[in-house]
Amino acid sequence: MSGVAAVILAAGEGRRMGGPNKLLAEIDGTSMIRRVTGTALASRARPVIVVTGHRREAITAALAGLDSAEVHNPNFARGMATSLRAGIASLGADIDAALILLGDMPFMDAETIDRIIDVFETSGRTAIIAPVHEGRRGNPVLWPRRFFTALMAIEGDKGARDLIVTHATEVIEVAAGEGVSRDLDTPEAVKAAGGRLLPDAL
Amino acid sequence: MSGVAAVILAAGEGRRMGGPNKLLAEIDGTSMIRRVTGTALASRARPVIVVTGHRREAITAALAGLDSAEVHNPNFARGMATSLRAGIASLGADIDAALILLGDMPFMDAETIDRIIDVFETSGRTAIIAPVHEGRRGNPVLWPRRFFTALMAIEGDKGARDLIVTHATEVIEVAAGEGVSRDLDTPEAVKAAGGRLLPDAL
Repeated sequence: MSGVAAVILAAGEGRRMGGPNKLLAEIDGTSMIRRVTGTALASRARPVIVVTGHRREAITAALAGLDSAEVHNPNFARGMATSLRAGIASLGADIDAALILLGDMPFMDAETIDRIIDVFETSGRTAIIAPVHEGRRGNPVLWPRRFFTALMAIEGDKGARDLIVTHATEVIEVAAGEGVSRDLDTPEAVKAAGGRLLPDAL
Repeated sequence: MSGVAAVILAAGEGRRMGGPNKLLAEIDGTSMIRRVTGTALASRARPVIVVTGHRREAITAALAGLDSAEVHNPNFARGMATSLRAGIASLGADIDAALILLGDMPFMDAETIDRIIDVFETSGRTAIIAPVHEGRRGNPVLWPRRFFTALMAIEGDKGARDLIVTHATEVIEVAAGEGVSRDLDTPEAVKAAGGRLLPDAL
């Protein structure tokens, strides 16, 4: 029992995609959100929670048969912070840390997640753990419970970047592959990755 | 040491007032927000935290010399929930419960606050405690720490009403005077209460 939950943010409208819901775009025949959720399920993180919002039914359908839990965020249009809150608020008291994953990073692998959890557990279970690729911090970031209140206090679409900066001395960095920094947030990026925006994803 | 903090919501724009910041309106020569804060300080609740937002400097000035703490909410325009979050997020781990006060209820008295805290302490420190006047629930409501996450997950301007309804069986009601239900949120109400909207409050 790791006590580390994965929270996958999959509620956004993907505005930079110009409308279509990028999370339903397929890479090698599997939707992005299903790939990310499958990766989390292949790691030691449990539970794996997917926060839905925009196109909830389609996201739920894309996850059919997977052993993930869904938390719906009816306020998704108010910004990513509302999804982060909904996800954190859903965690039980037995959860020691939350690993925050972005639904549009389909190249993340389970080994990286497990390494992040390992470092958390062997470093005293108090540090923020962030993956780094070529000198840049990526995702997912692991947050110990003591930061849950601060994570929930974030507003708007900034994400937790400011919080990492504020607590820079409490971050342990873990070297990782490019999957931790590669997101697909434009139609061009999806295409370049061999992906396909489906007509029904419009 | 009660372990109960008072969180006074004083960040709003007071839109129903038609513009002027109602919290600076004077009743018997003292601004509403100073009255409410003084009442909280006369009770056993500690610390007394005032969440500011709209017209922060004027609110701070109105509280000059009082032993309250200020927490500023730069996101106040996004709704009352953002102020509730900022207030809860500011509480230390030693706080067992938060009493949420509204800045526009100048007729609340310290005895009622102390009675609410008494009931919390003698009832096992787990229940929500709400004052009731003439069959209607009013404010302030005391929330034990186990509800802090749920309070922080509220969005928009609804306040905690839905949360009380969801946890109806966990609420203990305390009979109280009309101060717990009398808010001054229109110019007419201020006037009827003998209050004065100052020119500099426009």
